[in-house]
Parts: sequence; C-alpha cells; structure tokens
Amino acid sequence: MKLYLAGPEVFLANASDIGAAKKALCEKYGFIGLFPLDCEIQAASPRATGLAISVANEALIRDADAVVANLTPFRSPSADVGTVYELGLARGLGKPIHGYSNTPVLYTERVKAAAGFDATRQTDAQGMHIEAFELHDNLMIDGGIHQSGGHFYISKKDAALDSLAAFERVLQQLAADCR
Amino acid sequence: MKLYLAGPEVFLANASDIGAAKKALCEKYGFIGLFPLDCEIQAASPRATGLAISVANEALIRDADAVVANLTPFRSPSADVGTVYELGLARGLGKPIHGYSNTPVLYTERVKAAAGFDATRQTDAQGMHIEAFELHDNLMIDGGIHQSGGHFYISKKDAALDSLAAFERVLQQLAADCR
Repeated sequence: MKLYLAGPEVFLANASDIGAAKKALCEKYGFIGLFPLDCEIQAASPRATGLAISVANEALIRDADAVVANLTPFRSPSADVGTVYELGLARGLGKPIHGYSNTPVLYTERVKAAAGFDATRQTDAQGMHIEAFELHDNLMIDGGIHQSGGHFYISKKDAALDSLAAFERVLQQLAADCR
Repeated sequence: MKLYLAGPEVFLANASDIGAAKKALCEKYGFIGLFPLDCEIQAASPRATGLAISVANEALIRDADAVVANLTPFRSPSADVGTVYELGLARGLGKPIHGYSNTPVLYTERVKAAAGFDATRQTDAQGMHIEAFELHDNLMIDGGIHQSGGHFYISKKDAALDSLAAFERVLQQLAADCR
C-alpha cells in the first residue's frame, strides 16, 4: 500500500532527511511512502517551477492508495494549506485520508491564543465567528477524514512540527487495519 | 451551471446577506450559486454538528459543476483552510476550480510582511523555507486551479475580504467561456 506523505516538512532545511526517515518508518510497517520532495524539479521560471511541482505532486497523490498528512499548525492557527489541498484532492479521488497533529490544543483555543483573546470570546478582531465545534481544525478537515473512514491521531502533548511520534501512531493504526 | 461558492464569508456576522448577494450575482450571469450556509444544521453536540456540516458541504460540492473560491488570506498569510480543502475535493472529483483574491500581494511577500522580515530573507523564524514561486498562494492552490483550466482572478488593489468585485470578474470570465 502506497502512502502519500503530505506535510509542511518539505519547507525544512533538512527536508530530504525527514522524507527518508518517514519513508523508513513506512517500510517498517509494510507500506511504501511517497514524499513530495521526491520530485526535484527546475523549470524555466519560478512560476513554471511551482506549477510543475504541483503537477508532479498531484500525480503522486493519484498514484497513492491513501494520504497521511501532517496537520500540525503551520504559520497560522491551522494546518498548512498545501497539505490541506492535497487532503481534499485525495478525498475527491475516493481515497482514505489520514492525519496527525503534534499539538493537543483544539482549533478554537489556538485561534484565541494567537490573538491573545480570553476563552469566552466568540469572534476575532475582524468580527468573524471563531468555529467552536470541539474539533482539531476547520470542520471540513476533521469531517473529511472522518467521512473517509480515516485516522486522525492527535498528540497527547506538544511536540515539534517534524516530530514523528504521532506519525508512527497512524502507521501502527493502519498496520492494525490491514491485519 | 451550479457553482459552489467556497470562502470564509461563512464566518461573518452577516454571512447570510453575503450568501444572498453572491447568489444574486450568480443569477445575473446565468448561474446557480450554492452557498455553504444553505445547510443550517444543529446536531446533538458541537462535534456532531461540525461533522454534519462537513457532510452537507461535501454533498453540495459533489452536486456542483464547479467551485468558485474566495482565496483572500484568512487568519494567516494564506487562504482559509476549509475553503482550500473544498477546492482540493472538487479537483479530485474532476470539476473545474476557480478562485479570486482581494489582495494583489503575492504569497512570498505576505509571509515576510506578517513576520516583519526584509525582502531578501528566504526562511521564517523557524528556519523553514519561504516559497518563492511568484504565485499567489501555496503552489498546490495556484497549480490545481491552473491544471483544472480554471480562472484565478487577483484584485488589482487591496479590498475587504467580503468585497465582491473580484468575485464578479470570475463570473464574467465564466459567462464568456459559456458563449
């Protein structure tokens, strides 16, 4: 079973090391990991390169049997948007989608913490409603994983964005499903 | 042609007014607009309600012929993650995906501006690479729209998140396509 390993680790300086470590863990549990950075692409312009990477990553996702996404918050109270696009794409393709997060803090609390709001506040500084569904992120993310029958493992304590403990828990759950 | 109107306007206090205005504009150009807030849902718990809204919105997207997404940055340098999930979902379902943004500032500059960095800086405070593909958002978003043959209209000047000028430009382009 091929797993596309979505996540913002591609932006780390040691992205290829993280990719290798995630693939090795996949192999340990009997899976093949497909890491976005597999496609080293250089086109004629920055824009052409960006679009070509998108084509390559979409093809990898179409080739995968499922996606396991690192949904740890990235540059915001929410997961990385590139990762979330890939999760939606796989869901539309009818594949099971799985995720994990390296923080136990729920979305509602993360939005309030980022803005320095007290717990009772229900709207942000722009007057926009703060979702309060006791979910880990925007309801479309938690809901999509749930509808696909996927696993969403939430770390019991805060860990670094590139920590692999929660990722390995998802692989363990997937390996158990296959038994 | 039915257009699913994805966007963070659902979090505005006057969301239903915005929904009505977007639907009216769709009708003006010969389209039927499907607005997420159409599904007013109340389940037994906050979590059950969130998951039920996800089911209803995914069904609306499956029923639509295309998606038009408001990709104006929301609570971060990027678009709203719920909106981006919906864009990916529609792409996986093989539908054309379209978007607009009410700011002309590119992703790379938005990340740097949010962090107070100078223009030469290539990594964020966590040492993570700042994408520099001269695209409007994460490359999977711009790339997915491009691959689907969709329109991505970028406002020439900054406007409010709920401004409808760029949205109308996308509708005009879609109407021209249909001629």
